[in-house]
Amino acid sequence: MMRWIASDPMNRSRFPIEDWRLVELEPSVDDLGVTETLFSVGNGYLGMRANPEESRKSYAHGTFINGFHETWNIKHAEEAFGFARTGQTIVNVPDAKIIKIYVDDEPLTLGISDLDSYERALDFRGGCLTRELVWRTPAGKRVQLRSRRMVSFTDRHLALFEIELTMLEGDAPVVLSSQLVNRQDGFDDYRQPKTDDGFDPRRAGQFQGRVLQPRGQWNDDQRIALGYETTDSGMRLVVAAEHTLETSNAFEVVSRVEEDQAKLVYRVEARAGAPIVLRKAVAYHTSRGVPPLELFDRCRRTLDRVRERGFESFFDAQRAWLDEFWLNTDVEVMGQPAVQQAVRWCLFQLAQATARSDQMGIPAKGVTGSGYEGHYFWDTEIYLVPFLIYTAPRIARNALRYRVGLLPKARERARILGQEGALFPWRTINGEEASAYYAAGTAQYHIDADIAHAFAEYCNVTGDKDFMYRDGAAVLAETARLWADLGFWRQEADGSRRFHIHGVTGPDEYTAVVNNNMFTNVMARANLKRAAELMREMERDESRAFARIVSSLGLTEAEIREWEACAEGMVIPFDETFGIHPQDEKFLTSELWDLEKTPADKFPLLLNFHPLVIYRFQVLKQADVVLALFLQGDQFSLEQKRADFEYYDPITTGDSTLSAVVQSVIAAEVGYQEMAMQYFLTGLYVDLADIHANARDGVHIASTGGVWNALIFGFAGMRDYHGRITFDPRLPKDWEAMRFPLQIRESRVRVLLERDAITFDMEFGGPLELEVRGRKYEVVLGESVRVGLLGQGEELPSLTGLKPVTGGRPVTSGRRADGSVVTAILPEVKDADPE
Amino acid sequence: MMRWIASDPMNRSRFPIEDWRLVELEPSVDDLGVTETLFSVGNGYLGMRANPEESRKSYAHGTFINGFHETWNIKHAEEAFGFARTGQTIVNVPDAKIIKIYVDDEPLTLGISDLDSYERALDFRGGCLTRELVWRTPAGKRVQLRSRRMVSFTDRHLALFEIELTMLEGDAPVVLSSQLVNRQDGFDDYRQPKTDDGFDPRRAGQFQGRVLQPRGQWNDDQRIALGYETTDSGMRLVVAAEHTLETSNAFEVVSRVEEDQAKLVYRVEARAGAPIVLRKAVAYHTSRGVPPLELFDRCRRTLDRVRERGFESFFDAQRAWLDEFWLNTDVEVMGQPAVQQAVRWCLFQLAQATARSDQMGIPAKGVTGSGYEGHYFWDTEIYLVPFLIYTAPRIARNALRYRVGLLPKARERARILGQEGALFPWRTINGEEASAYYAAGTAQYHIDADIAHAFAEYCNVTGDKDFMYRDGAAVLAETARLWADLGFWRQEADGSRRFHIHGVTGPDEYTAVVNNNMFTNVMARANLKRAAELMREMERDESRAFARIVSSLGLTEAEIREWEACAEGMVIPFDETFGIHPQDEKFLTSELWDLEKTPADKFPLLLNFHPLVIYRFQVLKQADVVLALFLQGDQFSLEQKRADFEYYDPITTGDSTLSAVVQSVIAAEVGYQEMAMQYFLTGLYVDLADIHANARDGVHIASTGGVWNALIFGFAGMRDYHGRITFDPRLPKDWEAMRFPLQIRESRVRVLLERDAITFDMEFGGPLELEVRGRKYEVVLGESVRVGLLGQGEELPSLTGLKPVTGGRPVTSGRRADGSVVTAILPEVKDADPE
Repeated sequence: MMRWIASDPMNRSRFPIEDWRLVELEPSVDDLGVTETLFSVGNGYLGMRANPEESRKSYAHGTFINGFHETWNIKHAEEAFGFARTGQTIVNVPDAKIIKIYVDDEPLTLGISDLDSYERALDFRGGCLTRELVWRTPAGKRVQLRSRRMVSFTDRHLALFEIELTMLEGDAPVVLSSQLVNRQDGFDDYRQPKTDDGFDPRRAGQFQGRVLQPRGQWNDDQRIALGYETTDSGMRLVVAAEHTLETSNAFEVVSRVEEDQAKLVYRVEARAGAPIVLRKAVAYHTSRGVPPLELFDRCRRTLDRVRERGFESFFDAQRAWLDEFWLNTDVEVMGQPAVQQAVRWCLFQLAQATARSDQMGIPAKGVTGSGYEGHYFWDTEIYLVPFLIYTAPRIARNALRYRVGLLPKARERARILGQEGALFPWRTINGEEASAYYAAGTAQYHIDADIAHAFAEYCNVTGDKDFMYRDGAAVLAETARLWADLGFWRQEADGSRRFHIHGVTGPDEYTAVVNNNMFTNVMARANLKRAAELMREMERDESRAFARIVSSLGLTEAEIREWEACAEGMVIPFDETFGIHPQDEKFLTSELWDLEKTPADKFPLLLNFHPLVIYRFQVLKQADVVLALFLQGDQFSLEQKRADFEYYDPITTGDSTLSAVVQSVIAAEVGYQEMAMQYFLTGLYVDLADIHANARDGVHIASTGGVWNALIFGFAGMRDYHGRITFDPRLPKDWEAMRFPLQIRESRVRVLLERDAITFDMEFGGPLELEVRGRKYEVVLGESVRVGLLGQGEELPSLTGLKPVTGGRPVTSGRRADGSVVTAILPEVKDADPE
Repeated sequence: MMRWIASDPMNRSRFPIEDWRLVELEPSVDDLGVTETLFSVGNGYLGMRANPEESRKSYAHGTFINGFHETWNIKHAEEAFGFARTGQTIVNVPDAKIIKIYVDDEPLTLGISDLDSYERALDFRGGCLTRELVWRTPAGKRVQLRSRRMVSFTDRHLALFEIELTMLEGDAPVVLSSQLVNRQDGFDDYRQPKTDDGFDPRRAGQFQGRVLQPRGQWNDDQRIALGYETTDSGMRLVVAAEHTLETSNAFEVVSRVEEDQAKLVYRVEARAGAPIVLRKAVAYHTSRGVPPLELFDRCRRTLDRVRERGFESFFDAQRAWLDEFWLNTDVEVMGQPAVQQAVRWCLFQLAQATARSDQMGIPAKGVTGSGYEGHYFWDTEIYLVPFLIYTAPRIARNALRYRVGLLPKARERARILGQEGALFPWRTINGEEASAYYAAGTAQYHIDADIAHAFAEYCNVTGDKDFMYRDGAAVLAETARLWADLGFWRQEADGSRRFHIHGVTGPDEYTAVVNNNMFTNVMARANLKRAAELMREMERDESRAFARIVSSLGLTEAEIREWEACAEGMVIPFDETFGIHPQDEKFLTSELWDLEKTPADKFPLLLNFHPLVIYRFQVLKQADVVLALFLQGDQFSLEQKRADFEYYDPITTGDSTLSAVVQSVIAAEVGYQEMAMQYFLTGLYVDLADIHANARDGVHIASTGGVWNALIFGFAGMRDYHGRITFDPRLPKDWEAMRFPLQIRESRVRVLLERDAITFDMEFGGPLELEVRGRKYEVVLGESVRVGLLGQGEELPSLTGLKPVTGGRPVTSGRRADGSVVTAILPEVKDADPE
């Protein structure tokens, strides 16, 4: 169900279009939560929401460290065997952003203070957040304030703050109070705004009692530091800040530390025209095993390095790092400056979420908020890893390494669920299943196949066989083993024997615990097949890793043959009447949800209807069959894809932000170009225009990855089945051209897509074989390959006319594989006259 | 899956057979929990576990008042719209049973003290618990102790205790310390024994913080009293005790009260041979709205009445009440003294659970324990109301009245679930849904049809039209309305239009949230039909109640026609291959659970496997289709019933105690007489022999009701479809005869079933038309109708040979309607060779 959005849904008088920055020209306290998210800075390890240094009012004063979490016992209102036991919630670590500003003892307070000018900008190339404003104090004095803030991509423990304050008119006593504050334990009302007594399962849970136990404080007249240990999970953290003040004005400094607050206060006798520059370098170090004392030392060393190399050198290093980043990732969209800016914001968010996640997972909100409790989901493998594979394979490998480390716990979890092999947790930080609602959690067994898929893709595209043999093989084998054990053989009415998988939930969480979910079966089939292929390949290579895996997993030829048989016999549900793949065996027997009659304020459905009600209907939260058509597209004909898309699109609410970008890719492929653009824009602006009204909880990182997918796989029409790179582009009709780099097997090729041609330039490495619309081309270093294009794919009218009609009559919907429209034998709505 | 049990599984050296008492000859601390349950006393309002007056050691010092509960906010680990919000848990009210006994300052402590003799007995005719023992004190003195305890059937707020202590040899100082103690808030470790870190969802939840807030204390040298109010639910309670000491020995008395304890202590200079008799009368009064002060007054009045009428008169009244009870309920089993005793224990438990439940529900454990948190379920309507209808119609009416009172909240709940009409809570005390695990809770919509069924049966058998018109009509109409709204019409492949009900759970909780659960659809069909019939009948009668219901519910002729159409079009799933009713649409497509290979310690499955695992298989917790065959038996042929029974019996674990008694009834009907007996014994001894290893948590009241069902509907072969009373008996082959009374339409008939005849004697009322094997007989007052019987039904061998074979081969199971055995096209087990 497509919702039309304006091609540029942002308020441009407040957020003007710029190529390389997101800029805000007016401060507002009305959407603090959203702007805190949009302008946040981070590096994948450490993230800070965009609360101004001096601010009091906020939606959420948030600072997050990837994986730094507290654990708690999940108390199920009714227990059952095997339910998740350990809750895991990312901690709001002590806030180091604070530098309160007083002129004539009057505080600067956005939303109250009188500002002559204001600009705040997130700089995608400089990698920092800047602000510049002129404040007219109550006494009529004018104060110029400039600030810069960054979280370093090169030094992941480091954040830098710089404030330059100048009295433009009049002298005044100025106070700058730099602080470290433990907001998690009471200095803040973050997480659940007190006025909001509704609930939203996508927000973080609540702790009981103190989370951070004080483990030391330290101060002198330049440095302040606080140490903590989490009460239950036993993680340790130290945050320390180093300060230097540069000014010709007279000043004095005092510092003080307490358990939950450290302060360093400058009192300056500011004269007009004499700038005051305060530089604050902040180091965060965390560990599970190291004592807090050592973390104090580590912070000291990080801060010493800043002192040695100089503050500015880190801003330079940041810019250099980003130069390289943009060289590898930038997607240029010619003739579309608004889209261009939004695309770059998305790509910059991907850097901020993944650059230094190192060998941890990537939380659903990156490090921009505590939404989804800082958990890692399947999003990483399906929405982020493709981007990483083609732009930063080293980071992709790190993300996959994280899963390798989870294997022992995934094996344990499989045992609890009564299965062989490994079952990865649906949501987790520490590797244990943290999904307390199994129907839309643990039941999503497909995460095993998603992870296996990402390993296969990584290996196909990068050619990194070593990693696949050494680390990937166990993941593929153990996931294949799970599928072979989970499913069962059944003799069908026609005498054939097929492999069935019962009792699972697919990606679409509006239908739960079903038999033969199409997505799951398709992905499991690929998982089984790829695992068997890999084992055979390793055996042929006489790899030492093969001997190791055979002995450690007790692998036999018979088991590999079983995987092949399971893949071969896998049921892929197909309905002959509609010529479509039912989402699960019984999906088409259910009633249609009347989306047309559902008022706008009843979306998302999950916040307004009991799961039992939602599960009873044909209605989707997000692409499910359609996602399978994307990820395993070589298994389906174009006609099948079109029929499926036409059937599912009208009943897909897109209540999940994971939906639009996938709908966009397949809409482009099957010929609905206008819909592809609409879905693309929905994904592109999901946070920038706050389309789902929850950008305040953090950036939808998977959706930013999905935007890249929509650009490359949707509009550029790239596919990479089994490592074969092909293009069948559909450049949007209003776009002049687009250009982007791809890293493939240790080479980088830049792709220019224009209206009448696609051009490949090898920037390093090569040669490389690429296909455009079925023809092969070899691209070598130093040569440009230009392939002419006659048109850019089919262009069908939008699907609006095919929306299911549910006003009391049988539904008409669905286009047969031959293109004819089927008047469906579908459930009628219940209020039809029963006579 | 039948498990063979010994025909008399009780230890007879400890629990000898007696006709009218359950007797214990040896005390034991090893199974305290079980004996506390078996010997508990109660009247449906107030219940006391059988902790000895002096005892310290216990499994659970429990005293319960039906409906006296505390509420708490359910904290779901992951929230969703419409999840139950308010937890409700029965409170362990202050313990008034305590009379500690010291001789020469030595305490009497069972399990430690040296006893010369011991007997404890629950007297089914006297309605009291008696004990008699001789204690040899450490100083070698011999003390005789006799005690009686009862909870009054005639005065529901009253419990009486009497202790007679006599020094048989030697004088000694004797102390009797009578107490009232608030165990709920810390004087006791009841609920979760500290050493048990496992979980059992069938046990009660835990409170946080104080439950009972002190609201006054009172004492003089005869009376002590404590008042409380529950912290969250705001219910009030006062307990008061009156004491009299009768002895020729010198004594003094002191009393003291504190917030959580009241004591009245007698110090007696006991001389050998001079008895000391302590009588303690206890009154409990509770209320939601009345202030505690008034409850103190009510207790005082209850105790004054005891003082006036004399202690003994209440024991006499108790016996008189029970004389009448047995006249109306006793099922005599001739030639089977062990069975006879157990049957009477079950019937006595039914009295203790229902006699004074008045217009509250009947908790799953009666008032004998806090299992299932004191909640009311569908058990009342399906397992207890039939017994009550035929033996105590006034109490049946009270139980149904309770549901009438819930209608407003049931309407609210339906709205939350997006439905018209009323949806009764799956488990509740205060009327709000308290089921925190919806898949095996809220999803059991069938409770609506179960309640409607009970109303219909009540009206059919008693002829109490007034009640049906005034109170039952709204219940039937609102439940019918729910079904009509919940289901939907679909055009089938053959062009017909059928009414489908999706996304519900049937009685069998090992399969959840399915489409077209056979039990639900069959019961909903009856609900819709009966509601329409009732409306038409009321209209014909020009009843004023009809006008009222039309206006209050906005009922129209069109809606009544819609109910009829829904009933008519209702899908009842049937599988032609097996000739059976699948439990739900997709049930037969699932894999069979390998029960033969499941070790005994993995039962019940629900405590050893994740729900997702259990749901994936064909395996039943309890009768589901088979229960429908019982309740709506006139809708199915004998052959269909036999085929269904043969298919489901081998895959039914009986992990629920609700299962065996239903299996017994249908086994008897379809001809498996030996299985009928085995299932009957499993139900009969479920608590007496602790077959499910959880008798400690309270009596399985539904099962005791089921025992009556098995006797009357199973062995006596009675049916009462639409109020037509028919018999087709199957007297067990080892039984000489059985005799029982039935109240039908204001008459009472006593039925004697012998090997060669069935005889009816009208004791009051009449005449009455009864049918025996298709022939009608009129029974009138003063005449005896004897109908000769040639044999007692078919007798097939047990089903063991038909158990599904799941050891790697296709299953053979299922007998076709024509009696032939089908080699089934069934799922194979997964570890079959895939080649």
